[in-house]
Amino acid sequence: MIEPVKALNIDFNLATGLSTTRESTKRQLSRMKGMYYDEQAFDEKVAKENDPLIYEFYELEVPQTEGDILFGTSIVYPGKVGNEYYMTKGHFHTILETGEVYYCLSGNGYMLMENPEGDWQIEKFAPGQAVYVPPRYAHRSINTGDQPLVTFFSFRADAGHDYGTIETKGYRKLVVEKDGNTEVIDNPKWA
Amino acid sequence: MIEPVKALNIDFNLATGLSTTRESTKRQLSRMKGMYYDEQAFDEKVAKENDPLIYEFYELEVPQTEGDILFGTSIVYPGKVGNEYYMTKGHFHTILETGEVYYCLSGNGYMLMENPEGDWQIEKFAPGQAVYVPPRYAHRSINTGDQPLVTFFSFRADAGHDYGTIETKGYRKLVVEKDGNTEVIDNPKWA
Repeated sequence: MIEPVKALNIDFNLATGLSTTRESTKRQLSRMKGMYYDEQAFDEKVAKENDPLIYEFYELEVPQTEGDILFGTSIVYPGKVGNEYYMTKGHFHTILETGEVYYCLSGNGYMLMENPEGDWQIEKFAPGQAVYVPPRYAHRSINTGDQPLVTFFSFRADAGHDYGTIETKGYRKLVVEKDGNTEVIDNPKWA
Repeated sequence: MIEPVKALNIDFNLATGLSTTRESTKRQLSRMKGMYYDEQAFDEKVAKENDPLIYEFYELEVPQTEGDILFGTSIVYPGKVGNEYYMTKGHFHTILETGEVYYCLSGNGYMLMENPEGDWQIEKFAPGQAVYVPPRYAHRSINTGDQPLVTFFSFRADAGHDYGTIETKGYRKLVVEKDGNTEVIDNPKWA
């Protein structure tokens, strides 16, 4: 007889996004070399601020089939590299035709999306806002506030993460602070 | 040229689960005839309490492909029919081999699950607890607390809902209050 698959019950604190029962994956700034456009500010920050933690998220061990759903929280901390806000690396799904939902639990920011054809979109995160990333769109969470940006995400468990395309080409757009306002600018380093 | 699919941004209040921009689907008690085991208590409640609202949830218009994710909130109100707690109808997915995640935003209760082979499982909801319903499992949310049980759910958009199997056969197990405690009992009406 086949053993039934067990249900999971996992805690993610509604305020901090952190779990007491699972270990998060942590991304310090040095792991994002080349992704922020101000390279001098990047190098200084890594050196002088002891390579700060930019974001963390959970990678659960759910069976990676097309019928399963992977989920967890993502926490992007507040801060800037030069005038560019802290953000996640951003990724496409390896199975490009799969979407993902992010539900904002706390903090403020944006989801920046672009597809291989060059269309880009941006949606606002605020507590209680769900952002749906359609299939084919790379997506990056950006914290423009002064508190951690905490989201609960879910997507098809077999979708996979393609980080390489963004690491190589970059994003078409960047989100920066200018004169106290949040602005979307063209990425001068986009390949 | 193919028009890019638009991202969605939808509000679901973190405390109440309600959206100000979308209309919910509402389930009043009379729509659940035969699902609570105490039929006399059921009939009395429908008549004397003006057919109370038991739960509501959102059904968004996301493309129903295997690559899309459907999401929304579910709100089960507190109360009992006889000694059986307010609950959702519960459903299998039409595509049986698809899972679903529920993240509890507020309230207390349980997710009761069973598969066609007769295995059943129960997991606890409390604020900040995510419950993963594996593929093949019917699932029903049950509010055992005195506040609304609010969860954020997501699943593959083409999975579909099979309510008929539960409506016809019932659940193997029920969740009731006995001497001030919450107990799982066999369903005397299970077919």
